Amino acid sequence: MTNDPFAGLVISAPEDGDPAGTSYAFTSVTEQRQITLANDLSQQPQGLKSAAVMAGIKYPGVLDMSIVALDKPGPAAGIFTRNRSASSSVHIDRAHLANGRGQALVVLSKNANVFTPTDHQDATRICQVVAEKLGILQDDVMISCTGVIGVSLPMPVVEAGLDKAVAALQAGLHADVARAILTTDKGPKTCSTAFGPVRLAGMAKGAGMIEPNMATMLVYFFTNLDMPSEKLHASLARLSDKTFNSISVDSDTSTSDSMIIFSTGEVPYSDALFADFEAALAAMMSKLAREVVYQAEGATKLIEARVLQAGDVLQARQVAKFIINSPLVKTAVFGNDPNWGRIVMALGKPGQERDTPINPQGVVIKMGGEVLFAGGAAVPLDLAGLSARLKTLKKVEIEVKLGEGDAEWTAWGCDLSYDYVKTNADYTS
Amino acid sequence: MTNDPFAGLVISAPEDGDPAGTSYAFTSVTEQRQITLANDLSQQPQGLKSAAVMAGIKYPGVLDMSIVALDKPGPAAGIFTRNRSASSSVHIDRAHLANGRGQALVVLSKNANVFTPTDHQDATRICQVVAEKLGILQDDVMISCTGVIGVSLPMPVVEAGLDKAVAALQAGLHADVARAILTTDKGPKTCSTAFGPVRLAGMAKGAGMIEPNMATMLVYFFTNLDMPSEKLHASLARLSDKTFNSISVDSDTSTSDSMIIFSTGEVPYSDALFADFEAALAAMMSKLAREVVYQAEGATKLIEARVLQAGDVLQARQVAKFIINSPLVKTAVFGNDPNWGRIVMALGKPGQERDTPINPQGVVIKMGGEVLFAGGAAVPLDLAGLSARLKTLKKVEIEVKLGEGDAEWTAWGCDLSYDYVKTNADYTS
Repeated sequence: MTNDPFAGLVISAPEDGDPAGTSYAFTSVTEQRQITLANDLSQQPQGLKSAAVMAGIKYPGVLDMSIVALDKPGPAAGIFTRNRSASSSVHIDRAHLANGRGQALVVLSKNANVFTPTDHQDATRICQVVAEKLGILQDDVMISCTGVIGVSLPMPVVEAGLDKAVAALQAGLHADVARAILTTDKGPKTCSTAFGPVRLAGMAKGAGMIEPNMATMLVYFFTNLDMPSEKLHASLARLSDKTFNSISVDSDTSTSDSMIIFSTGEVPYSDALFADFEAALAAMMSKLAREVVYQAEGATKLIEARVLQAGDVLQARQVAKFIINSPLVKTAVFGNDPNWGRIVMALGKPGQERDTPINPQGVVIKMGGEVLFAGGAAVPLDLAGLSARLKTLKKVEIEVKLGEGDAEWTAWGCDLSYDYVKTNADYTS
Repeated sequence: MTNDPFAGLVISAPEDGDPAGTSYAFTSVTEQRQITLANDLSQQPQGLKSAAVMAGIKYPGVLDMSIVALDKPGPAAGIFTRNRSASSSVHIDRAHLANGRGQALVVLSKNANVFTPTDHQDATRICQVVAEKLGILQDDVMISCTGVIGVSLPMPVVEAGLDKAVAALQAGLHADVARAILTTDKGPKTCSTAFGPVRLAGMAKGAGMIEPNMATMLVYFFTNLDMPSEKLHASLARLSDKTFNSISVDSDTSTSDSMIIFSTGEVPYSDALFADFEAALAAMMSKLAREVVYQAEGATKLIEARVLQAGDVLQARQVAKFIINSPLVKTAVFGNDPNWGRIVMALGKPGQERDTPINPQGVVIKMGGEVLFAGGAAVPLDLAGLSARLKTLKKVEIEVKLGEGDAEWTAWGCDLSYDYVKTNADYTS
């Protein structure tokens, strides 16, 4: 049994299918087989109830408020944005999770509740109202808000919405919740799985301002495996490195990024179940992270940048992120241009652990599976033909061998299109 | 007399004029008055000869090769890109400047001579040919190449061009040289000035070329003030912090950035003349840096981000660069959207020296001269009116007070437009 939860991960991503992957499977220790993630919430744990309503926070007629509640409090953990302008929700959740326990989640969308005169007071009030109505402790309520920054929450509207949402609570984690947390996403992102008695369900939201550390990314998981919140927290932190912390839409880091996991605590802990749990969580985080990028504002292609033969892992990761964050690489991918010169620029960007000149002799650059540069020279190619083939791909793989060691890292980004500019320039605050 | 060469800098930038500034003046110690920079090379030092020719490196009929030569070797210094994929030209110039002396400059445009099988050999050969033809030492020749990455230089064409260029050398630093170093810049960027016996002339190329928006920057200065090359180098390094190192078009770092200064050594050094020299150089670097940004491809507006009341200078600078590099801020400026929420996001980005939460009570955000956020709350404003006014501005000032100390920094960027995407996506390698 390996210690790497990603080791048994099998992602199926046919060229003509969803570039984020059409199926994700992990190797279960307890069941001795590959288990495929469901794309919906069908494998959710029991003991949850939820509701999503149209509160009218910014617009009428759209789902903008949701509540998920556990029948009783259980272990919970979260990781959050490192932005210095972090929202009150983030500060409150950190405080509420200090005791390692949670029982409810309330999410408001279309308003980030950040940098308003009453943001902290309003977020606190929402937790208080939810706790009172559900008859639970205020400390056990987590809150997320996502949307425009700097606009005060319409509290009478919010409180009326909370009434409605609590009244609407029904057993189960409903697909509407995954829709209510969205803003400009192309669609909801959900998954769930089961192994032995364990259930794990997840959902994510994220469209722009995505350079997770975290990003305007909201991610929630619900399980029934009982384990200490420190262990939950460690899993989130460890697995996010190769998933949510390895994606970027635009290098902008949101004020509201939150990833929270709740457990109903129904299923007694065992090491074997925990190994499966981490493998399942790794698979889900891989899936949701890629979906966030591919469904980003203006994205037409998913970019997978794989850096091999780096001097160390930190450097491999830096270079992979330089590639996916370079506007010149991103526009080249949008234009179906196999422009490896821009990759040369990106892989040399300053600020790396190792700052000695790169030796071109050791570098191999591939794009869309074709070797473009090797042995210190451009490979003669039918560039027009390659460009025509790139045009048909929804996922463009960029592979760079640095010839400096054996460390590697993979990061995911998206192209930079007219629609990114349009979406973000036409938006009026 | 202040120790800050920027202290007496006066930039005139009327709202309806060139947003990079219509006139730049510095306070002369020796002449006790404001001296305005000429926009041309009229105040150049004597003892130079130059030529610019159409060598046909990539296309016929365009100026793509230039040589500047000093009558005798003099002090010289340079600062260069920190990209790990730095060009052979950069490596050669660093080596040639190790003795603190230079006598000639040769610049090839339309080809970066980077990551080709023979790039180093070709660049060395060019220096050798120039040295032989001019009867000077090879170590005293500096070379720059700018343009497409990964395409071998057509050496027979280059050598024929060198013949032509050397034959065409004529006394003086000619305006054609400032044109020959360009690729797709909107126009040449030159300036010169005189104080007492001292002459200083400069030219820059940047932001948009064959590899559009690669922001390859080439900057050259020529003076007659005699001083040790260590002093020249220290001035370049010190003054570039607040000028060329405080601008960004797209956060991508070129493989070829070079800034080199040559002195004919005619005018004996004095402390007073050196103070004027540094003030003049500060003014020139301010002017050329802003022109580079505003003339970036796809740029419709210059963004000036001024961060005040930061905890320390390093942090002020980080935050100013976060603002000008944020794709969300850049698209908002393109869309004339006074979207201060995105500025809140940018000023909190992770990776800052100080990582404690920002206190909104201490923050003031201005855009286009209007206060948008202060005292912890959005200022009620006619946003449509402000947007209409932003539309008329060629330079958008963003001012942020952090309320954390008294350090400040200013950085310059440009907006992110459809044309940036178009220019960089439509290009075919």
